[in-house]
Amino acid sequence: MADVVILGSMALDTIETPFGKVERVLGGSASYAAYAASFFAKPAIISVVGVDFPENEKKVLLERGILLDGLKREGKTFHWEGFYEFDMNEAKTIKTELNSLESYKVKVPDHYKDAKYVFLANIDPELQLDAINAIRKPELIVMDTMNFWIEHKREQLLKTIDKADVLVLNDAEARQLFNTPNLVKAANKALRLHTRAVIIKKGEHGALLFTDNKHFSAPSYPLENIKDPTGCGDSFGGALTGYLAKTRDTSEKNIRKAIVYGSVIASFNAEDFSIERLKKIRHDDIEKRFKEFREIREF
Amino acid sequence: MADVVILGSMALDTIETPFGKVERVLGGSASYAAYAASFFAKPAIISVVGVDFPENEKKVLLERGILLDGLKREGKTFHWEGFYEFDMNEAKTIKTELNSLESYKVKVPDHYKDAKYVFLANIDPELQLDAINAIRKPELIVMDTMNFWIEHKREQLLKTIDKADVLVLNDAEARQLFNTPNLVKAANKALRLHTRAVIIKKGEHGALLFTDNKHFSAPSYPLENIKDPTGCGDSFGGALTGYLAKTRDTSEKNIRKAIVYGSVIASFNAEDFSIERLKKIRHDDIEKRFKEFREIREF
Repeated sequence: MADVVILGSMALDTIETPFGKVERVLGGSASYAAYAASFFAKPAIISVVGVDFPENEKKVLLERGILLDGLKREGKTFHWEGFYEFDMNEAKTIKTELNSLESYKVKVPDHYKDAKYVFLANIDPELQLDAINAIRKPELIVMDTMNFWIEHKREQLLKTIDKADVLVLNDAEARQLFNTPNLVKAANKALRLHTRAVIIKKGEHGALLFTDNKHFSAPSYPLENIKDPTGCGDSFGGALTGYLAKTRDTSEKNIRKAIVYGSVIASFNAEDFSIERLKKIRHDDIEKRFKEFREIREF
Repeated sequence: MADVVILGSMALDTIETPFGKVERVLGGSASYAAYAASFFAKPAIISVVGVDFPENEKKVLLERGILLDGLKREGKTFHWEGFYEFDMNEAKTIKTELNSLESYKVKVPDHYKDAKYVFLANIDPELQLDAINAIRKPELIVMDTMNFWIEHKREQLLKTIDKADVLVLNDAEARQLFNTPNLVKAANKALRLHTRAVIIKKGEHGALLFTDNKHFSAPSYPLENIKDPTGCGDSFGGALTGYLAKTRDTSEKNIRKAIVYGSVIASFNAEDFSIERLKKIRHDDIEKRFKEFREIREF
């Protein structure tokens, strides 16, 4: 059985950054999240790809022990093409071809339905809600989203957030969703829904955790060479949920540790295109960087 | 004798934020820095004001034990008028009247010249260099700057940085001065000059310390109500240098603590206009918030 069920997109990405270009490489929120989660627990993907999806990419995931029984296969794979400018801060989209994602309906395999940990990676909030409804008795639902859904499906998104335990989003999205420039105010508004915790990802500035009466600020890793930030947010969420699933401890204290493990994996992810860097790291590398995170915040 | 000599501007500011407006209140980098430093050590100001400078503002500083023997008095006081928009991120200038600051020449009183700790708050880098040259055997020179000097006096600024021990600047300035969007790269370039440490202030995202082989990331305090961020950077630098002067310990480890004390004072400063909030805090408040800084970064 899977430890953590992950719903999200799977894509073939074409990406250019000041440090290179790759074409039709493995991408999508579920791919990054599941690969990141696999360092800690056994992930199971719910997603869709096209008949054109390369067998070798599928093999990469299967060999990591990632379950793909919830992976539908029809039409053409979702394709995203984008680039980053010099400051690497924001992905600019050249082309988005939704393809098989466009008419996708969530179908959760029976043997996924007793999963205790769920990560709803970035995807249409209505699909996220369908997944929530299909899982019998989850202990923790973590969800991510993006600006597109805030703009186009705000009401549905708020309904889905209301059913999740932990909301993960970036700082710009938090400001946009809760109509305030102040992240503390945004987090407090999120906590007034039924979420237990809000995690705000701030990229190079680390991440923040807000719960009812506690606040945690995770540092970021001082990366001098960022090759491609695509998928950092997804790896963060996947690793975080994977770590919580592994430890079966959803206390605020353990969520702090999970955030740092999420940051560790995300920092590795930025060091190369697609999941190339993640393919090369081992548990020793993760623990070494985790220790560095402790040292850089010590006073 | 003074523990820490502070060079910088003194001003009368007119400021509007979404939370109110004040006219001709105490401002300027030296005023904020000295008031902030006074919580830890005895500061001595080197600056200039006009004959119009209110006696009661002078009294406020003297009553804090701040030496004003290096304060010249001529012409009209430097006046800055500005506002902050909804997101409070950046001060927009309406008017800058340099007045007596325009022709100001640094004159360091004899009894300041044996000071061991120096904070060169934001002011013309040529004046900063004059102050450096006037102090006999300083143990630590901390300096701040701003975008205006990076644009207009780059060469002189780099020369001054080369003589300082600790460079303090904000993230936008670090990127601008060292021509890179990556803060780690910017810090490494700064360390190739003769500075021992670079501190990058990131406002709501905390502060970073870079030394030759160590890195520290200080969290920020989760302020829900920011009334006026003017002077936060100056209070940060003043408190930081004041704490180092008090403890007489310039180790990397102690600079980390000094950064957190700087962040504590800056966080209070943002809670009201001018130095109004700083006037009301006591040592208990500072220690309480310092402890909170520890708690929000614990994992």
